[in-house]
Amino acid sequence: MKHIYFFSKGESEGNSSMKELLGGKGANLAEMAGLGIPVPPGFTLSTEVCRYYDEHDGSYPDSLGEELKENLCKLEKATGKRFGDPSNPLLVSVRSGAAVSMPGMMDTVLNLGLTDETAKGLIATAGNERFAYDSYRRLVQMYGDVVLGLRPQSETDIDPFEKLLGTLKARKGVKLDTELDVSDLRELVALFKAAIREQLRVEFPQDPAKQLWGAITAVFKSWNNPRAIKYREINEIHGLIGTAVNVQAMVFGNMGERCGTGVAFTRNPATGENLFYGEYLMNAQGEDVVAGIRTPQPIETLRNVFPKVYSELTDIREKLEDHYHDMQDVEFTIEDGNLYILQTRAGKRTAAAAVRMAVEMARDGTIDKQEALLRVTPEHIEQLLHPTFDPQEEQKAIQLTKGLPASPGAATGAVVLSAEEAEKAVQEGEKVILVRVETSPEDIGGMHVAEGVLTARGGMTSHAAVVARGMGKCCVAGAGEIAIDYNAATVSVGGHTINRGDSISLNGSTGDVYLGEIPTIAAELSGNVGTLLAWADEIRRLGVRANADTPQDAATAVKFGAEGIGLCRTEHMFFEEGRIVAVREMILADDETGRREALNKLLPMQRSDFEGLFRAMEGRPVTIRFLDPPLHEFLPHNEEGQREVAQVIGVSAEQVREKVDALHEFNPMLGHRGCRLGITYPEISEMQVRAIIEAACNVHTEGIAVLPEIMVPLVGSVKELILQRELIEHIATDVLAGRGLTKKDIPYMIGTMIEVPRAAITADEIAQEAEFFSFGTNDLTQMGCGFSRDDAGNFLKDYVVKGIYAHDPFQVLDQNGVGKLVEMACKLGRKTRPDIELGICGEHGGEPSSIKFFHGIGLDYVSCSPYRVPIARLAAAHAVLKE
Amino acid sequence: MKHIYFFSKGESEGNSSMKELLGGKGANLAEMAGLGIPVPPGFTLSTEVCRYYDEHDGSYPDSLGEELKENLCKLEKATGKRFGDPSNPLLVSVRSGAAVSMPGMMDTVLNLGLTDETAKGLIATAGNERFAYDSYRRLVQMYGDVVLGLRPQSETDIDPFEKLLGTLKARKGVKLDTELDVSDLRELVALFKAAIREQLRVEFPQDPAKQLWGAITAVFKSWNNPRAIKYREINEIHGLIGTAVNVQAMVFGNMGERCGTGVAFTRNPATGENLFYGEYLMNAQGEDVVAGIRTPQPIETLRNVFPKVYSELTDIREKLEDHYHDMQDVEFTIEDGNLYILQTRAGKRTAAAAVRMAVEMARDGTIDKQEALLRVTPEHIEQLLHPTFDPQEEQKAIQLTKGLPASPGAATGAVVLSAEEAEKAVQEGEKVILVRVETSPEDIGGMHVAEGVLTARGGMTSHAAVVARGMGKCCVAGAGEIAIDYNAATVSVGGHTINRGDSISLNGSTGDVYLGEIPTIAAELSGNVGTLLAWADEIRRLGVRANADTPQDAATAVKFGAEGIGLCRTEHMFFEEGRIVAVREMILADDETGRREALNKLLPMQRSDFEGLFRAMEGRPVTIRFLDPPLHEFLPHNEEGQREVAQVIGVSAEQVREKVDALHEFNPMLGHRGCRLGITYPEISEMQVRAIIEAACNVHTEGIAVLPEIMVPLVGSVKELILQRELIEHIATDVLAGRGLTKKDIPYMIGTMIEVPRAAITADEIAQEAEFFSFGTNDLTQMGCGFSRDDAGNFLKDYVVKGIYAHDPFQVLDQNGVGKLVEMACKLGRKTRPDIELGICGEHGGEPSSIKFFHGIGLDYVSCSPYRVPIARLAAAHAVLKE
Repeated sequence: MKHIYFFSKGESEGNSSMKELLGGKGANLAEMAGLGIPVPPGFTLSTEVCRYYDEHDGSYPDSLGEELKENLCKLEKATGKRFGDPSNPLLVSVRSGAAVSMPGMMDTVLNLGLTDETAKGLIATAGNERFAYDSYRRLVQMYGDVVLGLRPQSETDIDPFEKLLGTLKARKGVKLDTELDVSDLRELVALFKAAIREQLRVEFPQDPAKQLWGAITAVFKSWNNPRAIKYREINEIHGLIGTAVNVQAMVFGNMGERCGTGVAFTRNPATGENLFYGEYLMNAQGEDVVAGIRTPQPIETLRNVFPKVYSELTDIREKLEDHYHDMQDVEFTIEDGNLYILQTRAGKRTAAAAVRMAVEMARDGTIDKQEALLRVTPEHIEQLLHPTFDPQEEQKAIQLTKGLPASPGAATGAVVLSAEEAEKAVQEGEKVILVRVETSPEDIGGMHVAEGVLTARGGMTSHAAVVARGMGKCCVAGAGEIAIDYNAATVSVGGHTINRGDSISLNGSTGDVYLGEIPTIAAELSGNVGTLLAWADEIRRLGVRANADTPQDAATAVKFGAEGIGLCRTEHMFFEEGRIVAVREMILADDETGRREALNKLLPMQRSDFEGLFRAMEGRPVTIRFLDPPLHEFLPHNEEGQREVAQVIGVSAEQVREKVDALHEFNPMLGHRGCRLGITYPEISEMQVRAIIEAACNVHTEGIAVLPEIMVPLVGSVKELILQRELIEHIATDVLAGRGLTKKDIPYMIGTMIEVPRAAITADEIAQEAEFFSFGTNDLTQMGCGFSRDDAGNFLKDYVVKGIYAHDPFQVLDQNGVGKLVEMACKLGRKTRPDIELGICGEHGGEPSSIKFFHGIGLDYVSCSPYRVPIARLAAAHAVLKE
Repeated sequence: MKHIYFFSKGESEGNSSMKELLGGKGANLAEMAGLGIPVPPGFTLSTEVCRYYDEHDGSYPDSLGEELKENLCKLEKATGKRFGDPSNPLLVSVRSGAAVSMPGMMDTVLNLGLTDETAKGLIATAGNERFAYDSYRRLVQMYGDVVLGLRPQSETDIDPFEKLLGTLKARKGVKLDTELDVSDLRELVALFKAAIREQLRVEFPQDPAKQLWGAITAVFKSWNNPRAIKYREINEIHGLIGTAVNVQAMVFGNMGERCGTGVAFTRNPATGENLFYGEYLMNAQGEDVVAGIRTPQPIETLRNVFPKVYSELTDIREKLEDHYHDMQDVEFTIEDGNLYILQTRAGKRTAAAAVRMAVEMARDGTIDKQEALLRVTPEHIEQLLHPTFDPQEEQKAIQLTKGLPASPGAATGAVVLSAEEAEKAVQEGEKVILVRVETSPEDIGGMHVAEGVLTARGGMTSHAAVVARGMGKCCVAGAGEIAIDYNAATVSVGGHTINRGDSISLNGSTGDVYLGEIPTIAAELSGNVGTLLAWADEIRRLGVRANADTPQDAATAVKFGAEGIGLCRTEHMFFEEGRIVAVREMILADDETGRREALNKLLPMQRSDFEGLFRAMEGRPVTIRFLDPPLHEFLPHNEEGQREVAQVIGVSAEQVREKVDALHEFNPMLGHRGCRLGITYPEISEMQVRAIIEAACNVHTEGIAVLPEIMVPLVGSVKELILQRELIEHIATDVLAGRGLTKKDIPYMIGTMIEVPRAAITADEIAQEAEFFSFGTNDLTQMGCGFSRDDAGNFLKDYVVKGIYAHDPFQVLDQNGVGKLVEMACKLGRKTRPDIELGICGEHGGEPSSIKFFHGIGLDYVSCSPYRVPIARLAAAHAVLKE
């Protein structure tokens, strides 16, 4: 069995398909070497050696020693140097490299092969004594730390080597390492070696082979160090057998003026423009570029400094893009005028760049459209849809606290502490951030006009978060550190007291909250995104609708490519001013007559809303859900509010309070809501059907096609649907007949939400009465898993950390549980009614992995908030491409 | 096609198997006639005639007239009289009779065939003019009402005939009908006929054939009168095609001193004793027995009065029991010394009688054991298990209001308004009724000591109702009319104000609430019940366990035949004095260390509880559930209580309030409870396992076998169970090792509740970790149907009325929905682990129709409250017998 794979320019035992075995870095080095790209020669000990090491208590396969010797020989031949040669020593780096990149998590040793003896050879060949001793002291320091374990024992300890370095610099009266001279560095080597001897009772090895074995073992060991394990846990990296170890000849960019180092991207990673992009530093090491002490030069200036190297580099750029068909991020070093490529990988890119490159590469035939679609992630599209802070300004801002990134985007404005204040301030031309302990349906008006919403309580799926995402509004939720004093109109956090009217800024993509204003960069759907999404539309089979409650939302949805409205929540209309009074009159009425009177006032308003929706959707289907929330949500819960309502409606405050008490429920989630309202008070459903069908008739008369889908919520038993269906058909037939129209003119459909587990289980029965199902996966998750969305914050985070659920099931569909209910309901529904229309309108309708699942079980469409429609379009195409 | 079936002693065209066609009454008359029992001859128009009549707008089959004539001829022959014969007229009764008895719902006409002419014949043959005119005026009155429709038009109207009768009596200065003489009665006939003529503009028909057709049609019509329809709805009588009509020769018990009428039971229907039982009146009609004006004589005195008739009657008694193999309820009339049997049917009986007769008949070989078991209903057993009020005393008591019959039994005691008062009063030797707006877990101590519980709010499955049934304690819940003023310590209802300390009485079987004390009759499980239940045990395959939290409950359970404990709710132990302090310390602790300290105080208490349980159960399995309710249930929610707790524990009241606020949940049902507590605070589960296993070791050492089944509640994902199982095994192994024992000594099992829909759906995965499933059908109903048990009262009644659910799904398992989840989980669980133990411990475990379902899907056992164990044993046997 082969354990070590050699690579050198034009000669390679591995390639990029061998990532499992050679790790990402090793496989790519082998691939580049195979392509004739000048990588420093070296070899890779495979991940299987790591596994062997782990499974055999730290011992190695018998043949490994022999193989290592052979490969060292080859390496000596390729470099013309010899390991341990006092005159022309071969120096190597020893680096980790797993199949999945885990930057900074495992160990590395550089300059390996230097000893008291070989240091002299390095002085001779490099012609630079200071460089040689600087390299040597770095090796001793790194080796002492990584291999021998001389390192801080607690977080408050100072690194023992840095301490010695600091003492020396203080003694010498210098500030920078670079100010130390040869003799200082030589002294430092001696001090470092002495520290190792005294503190560890071992000698720094003067045998290069012993150094090499030590470093290799240290890297393999680091695979299972606690931070690497933690990293894999957090990043959900599973199924890897270990890390590979790359032993590679050292090349130095800091050996003199004919040396340098740099990073290049084959295209601009910020914009995607097809121009060579990068920067470099002469006489420097890679870490100098990162440290930021010296300012790197733009890559194009290299053309004048090192014309040959520049030309070689642009050739390599072309070769790499030709080979990988993707933008590459390349690290290079120039040693004594020779170019070496240390690493290439697909370059990280901004969302805008990802889209532009994908579209341009597809246009010029580098990749096909399908590949182009796969190059862009749903997250990229999401980024493009929200305004963002100017990153430099954000870095400078004073951070107040961090909450949950509940709804992405960036927002800046004056603090207001109630929805009314928000509406008033915005009318006066101010931009505001609504800050609440938590929001409730009564706050929707204020949320709508605010730039962003900040709450002290609630999770990613709290009311604030869900509504804000629905509106495409920036929201930071559950910022537990803030203390809101509504009476004093102040917000306190981390020693700051913010008064009403003071400016704050929210980053809804990270959860950061800042003091003061931060300038934002506006979002735009550029032409390339449009092109890409059109390609997505060609490929996807899943329809994409939007959840939209108003004509404005509907218009946004259409702009973003929605093919219909999958959910219009009629109750959102009930909160608008002028309506809420009638709604409250209805609730407070003593009898059906009183309720009908109040409903008669609502009818023309609802009708006009629906007309607006139908017009905006121009013949696309519009799914309208009957009133869903429990009635107490429409009444104020504080005394003052109740007094006001009493006054407006003309009843006693006592009556209002009694009604609120009577409507109180221990578990409102499982209470008197959904179709249960329409069953208890059929007159509410009657009014809503009448409004829908009358609106449909009116818009039909204008020559616009109308496709209403009337949706009954929270059905648990087919008998509920039978009762509501009879009522709908009765009223609809009545209204149509009054206009001289028939169902042919207004081909309305009647269907139901599937959001109660019992409905999913008895979907075969329910399908007898339902022309469509729309899965309400939010409630189905709540009832299926037994989690209240409002309360689960207390334990759900912990559940995700403990791996009980891989993700928050309110964000990512719990396919194994709730998904099974959805799948079961689809099968049962189709058994009864093969042409039943199946959609989903829960939060998961805009979440890519959930969309893939919905595609897989054959739903007809997903419906999500208008701002997620483009994301869903791409995710639906991905679902096809990943089949 | 034959429409009419003739019967006469010894000659019969029908029999008792033809109930569908002839109705219950007709089939039984035919059967008796066939047996040679002297029934008055007659014939039955079949239910198919009724259907024809309904489906053909009130017309009859063509051949019916001819058939009717033929049968009239036969009847004339059998009686030796002729219909319409002025000298010896045949008189008949016309009665309804459907396949299922609907007493009083449909119409009857008696004495039909009397006219001005035939009345004279009746005078001649009966030799009693007064009797003849009394009979005639009754016919005119009944016919006028039933056939012609002269009746009160509203509830406040007086019956027109009664009005005339009243006027006449007033004029005559008499009080009783019997005081009217011949001429009065003759005048009355004239007055009645005139009233019909004047008010309806028709004549009372003087043609007997016309009378007959009119009466037959009136009876058929009455099948669909509103009260009959309502009756069938309420009593869930479905699938009948109509009523039959029985035309039968009249016999009179009121024609003179050689006449009489009576009712007899072949055994004593109150006690079940095998003695002829009944009463009779000489010279009387059936209605005179009911009216209670004259006191009937015991049946045995008939032996002296009419030896021949008595001997005939005892022969018939024997013949009927021989034939029907059941106690019969017989109506008889003696006309001129001749005995006629008018009706026989299985007699209604008390619970005690049902059991005694079933056992005695099985013992003497009349029926087999299986039939004996089927003769006793679960409701009979239930009646036998609760004390009841002395019925006569109850009738005299002043009723205050009526609530829901939440937990059966009878209770009398002094009103107390809090659990503390209850406990204090009982310590002082008082008997109390706990009256609360609603109860909460904090009230359990008070409920335990009270005689009964009365609440103003909450339904059949409210906290009060469920806990009371669990305790076998009388409870009336949701008595909405009572107003409780905790401050004034008064209860107001219907004008009465009851002070703390005043006595009231509750009938938990009817929901009636009375003022003052009513003496009760104690319940007892007599020898016959024991015998019967032993027979049930021989037959049933379903195991029966009890839900029991204390050694006392466990002892009761064993006494009632429980084969194990299916559910021990450990939290009930937490509420006891001395413990609640430690529980609260744990909740209020800032960190794990603080929680562990508090838990260490609880450990010895829990251990001792479990020791008590294990001893009481003597080797039977004991299923112990980990702490289940949300923690806020252990903290007081009012300011005063919080202050007290703060003082006891030594923290600030503010801290207690903050904790209560922090633990507040919008939907506690779906919140941080069940195994979620054990996942977040593993130290709680650890303490509980330690207590269980240490107790098991201690009791094992005493030489008593112990079978603990450790149950993890509210599992939704197998990963929760994995975590808890690891913890359990770790602690258990540790404790056992410390005692030098192994799992062979204490063969504990680890399993889970299946009460979250997701658990049912993923039961195959969960069964990998669970040795048993126990279905928590209460929560499974809540989550599966999306009903909160505490709130559903608002709409669930309406749902049952509208037929959306046939029954309250918290009382009777929703087999079609929740039942499917249970069935699915059983199949999935057995697929993974064929020998998995399957039980159910929800409320439905004691409900007969649900037990039948659980038997059908092959559960191993049901578990219910100790007081329902006998019911479950019988129901489980019935499930086998009805397979």
